Amino acid sequence: MAVEAPKKSYLSDDAARTLIDQTNTFIFDCDGVVWKGDTLIDGVKETLDMLRAEGKRLIFVTNNSTKSRKQYLSKFESLGLTGMKPEEIFSSSFAAAAYLSSIGFKKKAYVIGEQGIQLELDLVGVDHLGGPSDGDKKIELKPGELMEHDADVGAVIVGFDRYVNYYKLQYATLCLRENPGCIFIATNTDAVTHLTDAQEWAGGGAMVGAVKASSGKEPTIVGKPASFMLEYICEQFGIRRDQICMVGDRLDTDIMFGVDGGLRTLLCLSGVTTKEVLDETSVQPDYYVESIARLRK
Amino acid sequence: MAVEAPKKSYLSDDAARTLIDQTNTFIFDCDGVVWKGDTLIDGVKETLDMLRAEGKRLIFVTNNSTKSRKQYLSKFESLGLTGMKPEEIFSSSFAAAAYLSSIGFKKKAYVIGEQGIQLELDLVGVDHLGGPSDGDKKIELKPGELMEHDADVGAVIVGFDRYVNYYKLQYATLCLRENPGCIFIATNTDAVTHLTDAQEWAGGGAMVGAVKASSGKEPTIVGKPASFMLEYICEQFGIRRDQICMVGDRLDTDIMFGVDGGLRTLLCLSGVTTKEVLDETSVQPDYYVESIARLRK
Repeated sequence: MAVEAPKKSYLSDDAARTLIDQTNTFIFDCDGVVWKGDTLIDGVKETLDMLRAEGKRLIFVTNNSTKSRKQYLSKFESLGLTGMKPEEIFSSSFAAAAYLSSIGFKKKAYVIGEQGIQLELDLVGVDHLGGPSDGDKKIELKPGELMEHDADVGAVIVGFDRYVNYYKLQYATLCLRENPGCIFIATNTDAVTHLTDAQEWAGGGAMVGAVKASSGKEPTIVGKPASFMLEYICEQFGIRRDQICMVGDRLDTDIMFGVDGGLRTLLCLSGVTTKEVLDETSVQPDYYVESIARLRK
Repeated sequence: MAVEAPKKSYLSDDAARTLIDQTNTFIFDCDGVVWKGDTLIDGVKETLDMLRAEGKRLIFVTNNSTKSRKQYLSKFESLGLTGMKPEEIFSSSFAAAAYLSSIGFKKKAYVIGEQGIQLELDLVGVDHLGGPSDGDKKIELKPGELMEHDADVGAVIVGFDRYVNYYKLQYATLCLRENPGCIFIATNTDAVTHLTDAQEWAGGGAMVGAVKASSGKEPTIVGKPASFMLEYICEQFGIRRDQICMVGDRLDTDIMFGVDGGLRTLLCLSGVTTKEVLDETSVQPDYYVESIARLRK
């Protein structure tokens, strides 16, 4: 019987069956749900196989912009998750490129970020500058020194960048302050990210925060919890929101993305959120569970 | 006759005389008021000499944290402004150190910033890490990689840093997120700064914006327009606020610092603010003038 559970119920066996029956598309966050760092979470492969066998559409959405869709596909395959298509993977690097396509963007983009953003821009035919190639650039100051910048840059894209430096910050700032109409896109504003399992690392929000402050502009965010990727997915696959369940480990990105988008939401405690944090927060999923392996029991 | 002028009057000869008579202490911003980059502004030396000859106290306050007080003194002297004392110069590097002294700080400080902050910390006996010596550090990621950090860091100080990198951002973030009670001090949050006259450069606000975003914490700001330096100056010299005139070229730092502090305010158009900008803004000085040379006519 399909009774809506109150917010934040533990996912019982009955509730899991009902959730699966009600859902046509599962959107999974990756890190903390499918894998942790470079390790597949126990039981995930079997759960995904079961859901596919039941005819469910599986989509993977990640705020990590350092890889392209194709690079993510390789990561899935390296972990034994085979048979997927790049079109089932939505990274914020892809979302940045898709956003520019959606507005008919024809100019150049300046990138603070890693390779994933550049690869996705190549696929949609947007010329780009910056990124890894500016990683070693320094500014030698002489009196009257001026940084030249390309007046054809019409968008600055900022994502996580382990090689961020003052050259990149100044280049992005100049484009945003001096090129008329230049738009500012953030792949995500995550405070921290999991470069490794061992600790939390400063996330893409740091690079975005720097450029916000120096440009005085607010970015358009394409990653979770903003709605761009959900709108794109619903349109591309022709899915209704009440047919979707969002599965993630972060309250402020994944679950907020689902709640704001009118999706059913399932929080996994296999990532960054503990039960103690869940008990104290205002963002509440419909259900919570130790890991998505639970969907198979 | 000492009649209060309406806000934003051009400083006439009569008004200049009245302003000087009413004022016991002039607080001057440096860049855009005294000099531009490495060039003294015409007539400044003569004006400062005249004010000193009339018995006025002259204090110089800058948000630039890259130099210490003593290094600023050398800059004044190199421009022919001799006879000053370090105690008349208040840089935000000094303010960061003075703030730590004022709260009886006994732990270590991690610095994102240039040499000025470190030199000032040395003078007040605060141990510090980071700064220029972390400028070339990189993070080589291996699975399970962990950045160690010093548990004795009790303050993170963030100022303008031309050598900002991901290592420094992560170190600062770890201290703020993981060391209990670690405080966050920003020398200033200026969006842009004038490293050279030729263009505007991303300012200290960029580095602060990055650490705000990754730490999730709000800093205590010691530079203008925050009130710390004014309170310090009033106490140290025993000056009443109605005896002070704040002279600066920036509305959002200098003039706001004066208005918020209950000082008389004089805007110079010799720096970043044009008359057109002044006419459109809500922050209004008592007077405006082309340059402080006008005080001498």
